[in-house]
Amino acid sequence: MDATLINPFLEAILNVLKTMAFVDAKTGKMYLKKDRKANGDVTGIIGLTGDVTGTLSITFTEGCIKGIIANMLGEEVHEIDDEVRDAVGEITNMACGDARRKLDDMGYRVASPRPTIVSGKNHVVQHLDRSSPCIAIPFETEFGGFTVEVSIRSEK
Amino acid sequence: MDATLINPFLEAILNVLKTMAFVDAKTGKMYLKKDRKANGDVTGIIGLTGDVTGTLSITFTEGCIKGIIANMLGEEVHEIDDEVRDAVGEITNMACGDARRKLDDMGYRVASPRPTIVSGKNHVVQHLDRSSPCIAIPFETEFGGFTVEVSIRSEK
Repeated sequence: MDATLINPFLEAILNVLKTMAFVDAKTGKMYLKKDRKANGDVTGIIGLTGDVTGTLSITFTEGCIKGIIANMLGEEVHEIDDEVRDAVGEITNMACGDARRKLDDMGYRVASPRPTIVSGKNHVVQHLDRSSPCIAIPFETEFGGFTVEVSIRSEK
Repeated sequence: MDATLINPFLEAILNVLKTMAFVDAKTGKMYLKKDRKANGDVTGIIGLTGDVTGTLSITFTEGCIKGIIANMLGEEVHEIDDEVRDAVGEITNMACGDARRKLDDMGYRVASPRPTIVSGKNHVVQHLDRSSPCIAIPFETEFGGFTVEVSIRSEK
């Protein structure tokens, strides 16, 4: 998988968190996801079709997303409820939209539906596309960690 | 949302379960999903773009998917592991492929990436697209229930 296809998503996520929630996230070392262990409690999932196909997920730990959403909304967040899931959906959607614009500038036409959000303590996410490796990128914030998983490939 | 767009997915899921796992599923009464309560333990999620856009999920209870996969593989299934998640992905993918062919015959060109699978006891799935209602369709099998949720719309 070409890193130039992944970078627009990572930049977009950092940018959305900074702009929307005033949260700085530090990018950790990306790795090939071989095991499938749970790594979070709320996940935004989005699929891509067109010149780049595959799936992308952003999985937040509960503490991390509570901190981010509290910053976004300006009020304390006590539980993972509809409002939090909506906000995770918006973060995923905005980041994906931003990344798609960047890919478009690079000559890749990409379409995606709106995201799906899953919440549940300690859930496991698995990207099915065996023909694309799944790359995991851990991030760290002042509130805790989140992980972006990308399983995409160029169709050009 | 036009039921003619949903039916190809429902027929395809029934057909895949019948063909792959020799399981007959009874379709329950579809309803507009207003609450967002957990309704299962393993979910296959797929996005659609093109003439029909949106997202679709199939959420199985643990007992139901264990029975289905045991039938598929011809051996007892003890836990929700990689093999089960893979199989849920395949069921989702095959059903979606079949439905896409039917939609194609109806004049709708639809693209989708491979599905994403989430497992975790009692998780909640939320489809973000507010402009499309989310329709839930419960199914019952000899092993227990599963629910298909469809949040799609025609772009034609």
